[in-house]
Amino acid sequence: MAMRMSRAVRGKLPLSSICVRSLHTPAVRSRGKVASSVLLGAAAVAGLAAGFSQSRRAEMASSVAGKDEVDERCQTFMAAPITPIQNLKENIRDTGSRMELLIMETQAEVCRALERADQGAKFTVDRWERAEGGGGVSCVLQDGKVFEKAGVNVSVVHGYLSEESIQQMKSRGKNLKVKDGKLPFCAMGVSSVIHPKNPHVPTIHFNYRYFEIEEADGTKQWWFGGGTDLTPTYLNQEDVVHFHQTLKEACDKHSPAFYPKFKKWCDDYFFIKHRGERRGVGGIFFDDLDSPSKEELFQFVQSCAKAVVPCYIPIVMKHKNDAFTPEEKQWQQLRRGRYVEFNLVYDRGTKFGLATPGSRIESILMSLPLTARWEYNHVPPPKSREAEILKILKDPKDWVH
Amino acid sequence: MAMRMSRAVRGKLPLSSICVRSLHTPAVRSRGKVASSVLLGAAAVAGLAAGFSQSRRAEMASSVAGKDEVDERCQTFMAAPITPIQNLKENIRDTGSRMELLIMETQAEVCRALERADQGAKFTVDRWERAEGGGGVSCVLQDGKVFEKAGVNVSVVHGYLSEESIQQMKSRGKNLKVKDGKLPFCAMGVSSVIHPKNPHVPTIHFNYRYFEIEEADGTKQWWFGGGTDLTPTYLNQEDVVHFHQTLKEACDKHSPAFYPKFKKWCDDYFFIKHRGERRGVGGIFFDDLDSPSKEELFQFVQSCAKAVVPCYIPIVMKHKNDAFTPEEKQWQQLRRGRYVEFNLVYDRGTKFGLATPGSRIESILMSLPLTARWEYNHVPPPKSREAEILKILKDPKDWVH
Repeated sequence: MAMRMSRAVRGKLPLSSICVRSLHTPAVRSRGKVASSVLLGAAAVAGLAAGFSQSRRAEMASSVAGKDEVDERCQTFMAAPITPIQNLKENIRDTGSRMELLIMETQAEVCRALERADQGAKFTVDRWERAEGGGGVSCVLQDGKVFEKAGVNVSVVHGYLSEESIQQMKSRGKNLKVKDGKLPFCAMGVSSVIHPKNPHVPTIHFNYRYFEIEEADGTKQWWFGGGTDLTPTYLNQEDVVHFHQTLKEACDKHSPAFYPKFKKWCDDYFFIKHRGERRGVGGIFFDDLDSPSKEELFQFVQSCAKAVVPCYIPIVMKHKNDAFTPEEKQWQQLRRGRYVEFNLVYDRGTKFGLATPGSRIESILMSLPLTARWEYNHVPPPKSREAEILKILKDPKDWVH
Repeated sequence: MAMRMSRAVRGKLPLSSICVRSLHTPAVRSRGKVASSVLLGAAAVAGLAAGFSQSRRAEMASSVAGKDEVDERCQTFMAAPITPIQNLKENIRDTGSRMELLIMETQAEVCRALERADQGAKFTVDRWERAEGGGGVSCVLQDGKVFEKAGVNVSVVHGYLSEESIQQMKSRGKNLKVKDGKLPFCAMGVSSVIHPKNPHVPTIHFNYRYFEIEEADGTKQWWFGGGTDLTPTYLNQEDVVHFHQTLKEACDKHSPAFYPKFKKWCDDYFFIKHRGERRGVGGIFFDDLDSPSKEELFQFVQSCAKAVVPCYIPIVMKHKNDAFTPEEKQWQQLRRGRYVEFNLVYDRGTKFGLATPGSRIESILMSLPLTARWEYNHVPPPKSREAEILKILKDPKDWVH
């Protein structure tokens, strides 16, 4: 399928102050497939696998970034940001600008860490634009040594919400004042699914996003959403505890109430209702967050984004060379089938993407595994390692206190 | 996942005259996995691969079946019907009884024809019951010589429609008078998806069903739905013409308006909106049919059901030993991915199943292929055979006139 490479049609954009950055200067021309190396420049990304303290330093630096630092930060990205750099600089105090820099930075951090873990594999970088407004940067590593398919996608889109999306939002309690059926919005986020080859290395998903809507009377609604969750093929307690502990620490810096609340939300959200199973061993998930304040939530989301590499990469390094049997590979493929079921039947982000006109389908469905399997009526033997993980998926437990 | 093997709880069934057969006698006890051979008895199924005239004779016979013939017909089924045979006999003039016999018969015809084509592979037969009312017979052949996964499922379920299903029906224009939020229904059908191993043998799907609802004021609404459609990995014009021609002949016996109308409906229905592609090269599809009369529609559905074997098995026989390359197999796997996308995102039957409490998920998701693949941004080379079929999927054509 051909990529959408059309330039932003300025006349079609809503004349709202939302995502105003993108309206004031011509869109950067799409460059099609750009080898990641071209855009790295003098990238100096910290060693991230074990770099807790390094990532904390980076986190503090990024939260106080000023105009002068923007150029430098952009140098480390996988591609140029969607909004022209000049606009980002001019609006550097806006949450939208800061969020765009954060998601671009997170994309680069994660991609570089995965490339290292995959011993030199390279992400393919597609920078694309959306005719209806905005665009994105999709980074994909397919059929590497360690990763079967890893996608890390940034998108910054604006335009009008589709009727379907308005209904979806209303159905989850949003009170939206619509004029002539039109509702200008701006949504930006980084989202990623990493499917490794080895069945002893779990799949991870994370997604951090910021949403703004301008209502008919000029009121602006905004909220943050996001989460990070793990889907192992087999249960390894130590790994799961490390994963949850790292997320808990990121949450605890902002509120002791966050981790327990978002851990439960994650278990509830990633539920494959028709199977009576969760998709994985959870993590954290939240949506529609608009209090206590924009600033506090931005800081929280930043901490979560910075926790992705330290919560996952150590698990990859530990297991990427583990031996496995064909039977273990087959069980992984069956679990991949369940992953597909969740994403296509329930996932709100996928549904929003499929319902948004002009969405880039390849970026939305990047989350699907390279390969998956469905056997009729597969039931693992009692007391097997397959039955062990199924039990946890049916009845999730607390991993850290 | 454990099969639902619970017996029908009679107290929970709606006290309506719908599916009255199932209310008047205790449900047949579920037998769990039953080898198909046990239930064949003195089955004498006609050679179906080339048997156009034989199947026409069978069709005429089945449409005039009387009480005495019921026992004989049931002998040929893959398992005992869901409704006790005595009830079927007592209500042999009811559309529900006749439809149940037709769908059981279709299941057996198709399974036997596939077993022959697969040179002796055998279907596994699961007869199951639904706690909320009714049950089904699921026949699956997995990892055969010719077929990767073939499922032929009969279900006869009754109970109350879920709120979600009521909304779905209303959204497609059904005017339903609901009392206390409850709406007793009865739905029965045969549905099947056959995924072959060889990429030169297409996948087929068919489904024929009958639906009854009793409204709050005692009014009964009923309708038929169904269709047969083909999903090749590569285009073979001759095969597609044979397929459509056979369906057209079945339709033309009842009305010259049927084939063109239902051919278009099929192209419109099996549309993967987010890809801008049809799932396959179409066939026929219809739903909510309630005119000209119940009898005429039953006869029409019967003709369609009888056309399944002659429209498909000759294509299987022609190509099952074709040579193929690893690249052709990989393209088949990518197309299987699209099949999964359609079934999980759009298919109304799947959605109804997933939304109906107590549904047997393994039977609903039997339609998913054994294996599927998703590559990021896969675009076949121009003028390749892969591009040729994609063109047809994007812009469907007329195969017979």
